Amino acid sequence: MAGRASNELLGALGAAVRSLRVARGMTQEGLAEGAGLHTTYVSDVERGLRNIGVINLDHLASALSVDLVALMREVEDRRHHTPGAGP
Amino acid sequence: MAGRASNELLGALGAAVRSLRVARGMTQEGLAEGAGLHTTYVSDVERGLRNIGVINLDHLASALSVDLVALMREVEDRRHHTPGAGP
Repeated sequence: MAGRASNELLGALGAAVRSLRVARGMTQEGLAEGAGLHTTYVSDVERGLRNIGVINLDHLASALSVDLVALMREVEDRRHHTPGAGP
Repeated sequence: MAGRASNELLGALGAAVRSLRVARGMTQEGLAEGAGLHTTYVSDVERGLRNIGVINLDHLASALSVDLVALMREVEDRRHHTPGAGP
């Protein structure tokens, strides 16, 4: 069972992946192919439904042409600026 | 089966976690307790044996008083400076 903080993290990660993908004009299918993952898996990650492991996270980052630092920066930015999340 | 790149990633992550923990004067037991994880799990992560999920990664980062950006910076620094890894 995921707590509120975990849901916020997975949601922020999903939003970050989607944002980077769209900015690159990639489809979920294209990202999945680049990362060696299934399209349904990428879709789940983007919807915040997957507690993705660090190896697949790295595959996604590579396919998005960012490193893990840049990917996590996008995640942390989103996590700390969630509307209504409060101080 | 993990490839070479994955092994390097997990090894770099383990070294990063261990380095941050030791710098804070924490034991594996203390880190595990702070992160809500088992000591054996933390030990496995530090030895590069676990494809840790992003939720547990976040718990470890919090217990080490860093965010995911800072943790991944430590990881990427180690990964790109592995002796003998080549260009």
